Amino acid sequence: MRDVYVAGIGMTRFAKQPGRTLKDLTGEAVVATMKDAGQSVGDVQSCYFGNAVAGSMTGQEMLAGQFLLRPLGLGEIPVFNVENACASASTAFHLAWQAVAAGVHDAVLAVGAEKMTHPDKARSFAAIGGSVDVETAPADLPAGRSFLMDMYAGAALRYMERTGTTRADLARVVVKNHRHGQLNPAAQYGGELTVDQVLAAREIVWPFTLQMCSPISDGAAAALLVSRDLCPAGPAVTVLASAARSAPVAGMTSVTSLAAAAAYQQAGLGPADLHCVEVHDAAASAELLIYEQLGLAEPGGGAALIRSGNTTLGGSQPVNTSGGLLARGHPIGATGLAQIVEAVAQLRGTAGGRQVPGARIALTQNAGGWHGSDNVASVVHIFERRTA
Amino acid sequence: MRDVYVAGIGMTRFAKQPGRTLKDLTGEAVVATMKDAGQSVGDVQSCYFGNAVAGSMTGQEMLAGQFLLRPLGLGEIPVFNVENACASASTAFHLAWQAVAAGVHDAVLAVGAEKMTHPDKARSFAAIGGSVDVETAPADLPAGRSFLMDMYAGAALRYMERTGTTRADLARVVVKNHRHGQLNPAAQYGGELTVDQVLAAREIVWPFTLQMCSPISDGAAAALLVSRDLCPAGPAVTVLASAARSAPVAGMTSVTSLAAAAAYQQAGLGPADLHCVEVHDAAASAELLIYEQLGLAEPGGGAALIRSGNTTLGGSQPVNTSGGLLARGHPIGATGLAQIVEAVAQLRGTAGGRQVPGARIALTQNAGGWHGSDNVASVVHIFERRTA
Repeated sequence: MRDVYVAGIGMTRFAKQPGRTLKDLTGEAVVATMKDAGQSVGDVQSCYFGNAVAGSMTGQEMLAGQFLLRPLGLGEIPVFNVENACASASTAFHLAWQAVAAGVHDAVLAVGAEKMTHPDKARSFAAIGGSVDVETAPADLPAGRSFLMDMYAGAALRYMERTGTTRADLARVVVKNHRHGQLNPAAQYGGELTVDQVLAAREIVWPFTLQMCSPISDGAAAALLVSRDLCPAGPAVTVLASAARSAPVAGMTSVTSLAAAAAYQQAGLGPADLHCVEVHDAAASAELLIYEQLGLAEPGGGAALIRSGNTTLGGSQPVNTSGGLLARGHPIGATGLAQIVEAVAQLRGTAGGRQVPGARIALTQNAGGWHGSDNVASVVHIFERRTA
Repeated sequence: MRDVYVAGIGMTRFAKQPGRTLKDLTGEAVVATMKDAGQSVGDVQSCYFGNAVAGSMTGQEMLAGQFLLRPLGLGEIPVFNVENACASASTAFHLAWQAVAAGVHDAVLAVGAEKMTHPDKARSFAAIGGSVDVETAPADLPAGRSFLMDMYAGAALRYMERTGTTRADLARVVVKNHRHGQLNPAAQYGGELTVDQVLAAREIVWPFTLQMCSPISDGAAAALLVSRDLCPAGPAVTVLASAARSAPVAGMTSVTSLAAAAAYQQAGLGPADLHCVEVHDAAASAELLIYEQLGLAEPGGGAALIRSGNTTLGGSQPVNTSGGLLARGHPIGATGLAQIVEAVAQLRGTAGGRQVPGARIALTQNAGGWHGSDNVASVVHIFERRTA
């Protein structure tokens, strides 16, 4: 397998953007990415397009990539529409990496885009519910509720009982990620909150209050992956590892643990070597569990880690410097690439007020769907800044 | 790139199967494929799952592959949901081929599955309409009509005017494919029709009568792709070429012509070398146009070729021995793999009453979507039987 470099990154702001179309958002992210790479869209050799709910939200059930990219001047290249629920964008990036690493193509575009807002808010929640097995999902839910968040809440309660994690610990994740979010111009939310404020907010589903759940967002993000030959001179960000796993049977080892183990082996390093990390905090509790699944904390040690401050900017191993899903926002088919945009910015040293000094190695973890007690899919990437 | 072999094939019957679920159909095709390959589902290293309209038909908008494959005992492997409208299954096969050819994995499963029937027939037609750009598609259509077939009809009228092709020529395609279909136990339709009978059938949209349009179907098909090491001893079918193209701008060179040119170059052969061919006859007129795009006929020579009888079983270069989309059926996300199942059966010499004697090289062409005057995506494969 060849070395693969990230030559360009770009994203829209993540926010509720009812006045913009999915095509408009996609175009902005792709144009920014190609400009960042200093390359022409006509040089792209194939494209992997990640999206999860355009069908239910916009009616574009098929060929979203081709129709959304049409105005941009791509050649008659293969365009592959890929979907893995909330892990769609990292799946697109993984397959783009695979194509470049394997020598199939030298310049491949990975795009993730999603428009979740709708005049009928129930449509947005129903769309998110499409990531659970339709044969077992309830047909009706109270208005304004997503079955997926119900499942996250159930898992959170089990986790809290098993580990002694409190609702205040969940609130600490929110406080951290909103603090980070205010430093990210692309983030949907951000600001200084207190644990008490988060706990006093409106309950969505016990034990979660409003800010403990990732929001409804619109946005797009993209990256251009290239082989060494097409990589601009100077420092560059390379993909040390790209690992995807799916869970066929609920209750087995978590897919994130499996994907992380594969990624660490591929990269030849471990959790202690990471300078910054982006994880899939679809709910505040998820971030704590993922600390453990990635080996950043001992089993059961998620709450101790958030309390230590080590994962806050200024700490030893900042997590979700972008604001994470909770504050940066979660347009589901775009999230995985927004994480990668943040990781690459950190390694380039261009993350502005949220820069982790000297960051050289970054990890991203993006998960999708829920069944039983685990995510259905998880994709882990590790990136390194190379100076050669 | 390494040689890639098709170690196993399997499919359900294609038909209206209102009593069966998508999970049931998927399972039957995958179990048959693994049995045919003599390998265990636990040995599969990754899976590309093609589907186009499960979201609109069943509500499973996300993670269809993971949930549908769950009962079968796959390991915690990467599962990628891929979609390219009616070319979804060949796209899944193309990406599976890419993974094995590039050395990423040694045993990869490609699956295509679709359930199109619904108690509310309008749902089926609306789902097909999801393959055109939602920003330009009409919001409402007469009941029982698909906008996609309207677009095929418009293209057919232009083709007929340009080439002198008649409605009787379109009927000849139907007569041939139904004759082939009656020899295929997996086909939805089949039998001896006359040109007059086809012309006298109910008009769907001028110039098409009922049998000139591919039907609503339910079904699944799959293939196991392996590297040389995992290929059973004896004669084997190898993938000589796999080429995918998408059309970014309507009115340029057809995507099928481009994909075919790339495939011929990759395989180092031309149209005269093919012993049998499966094409995407979504409408009868499409088969004639594809004859030209594949170089089986001169430009404008599609009608002369169907009249010659050369593409009928017993002729020099039989096309759609399976019955094609018109008679074998068209569960859209499964069709591309059903074509490949037919090609492999022909090369193995196991095609029964529709066997092309001595077939050694076969081509499949699968297209998806429509914009302006052309399909949006097209995928062409070329296969060869090797005796070594």
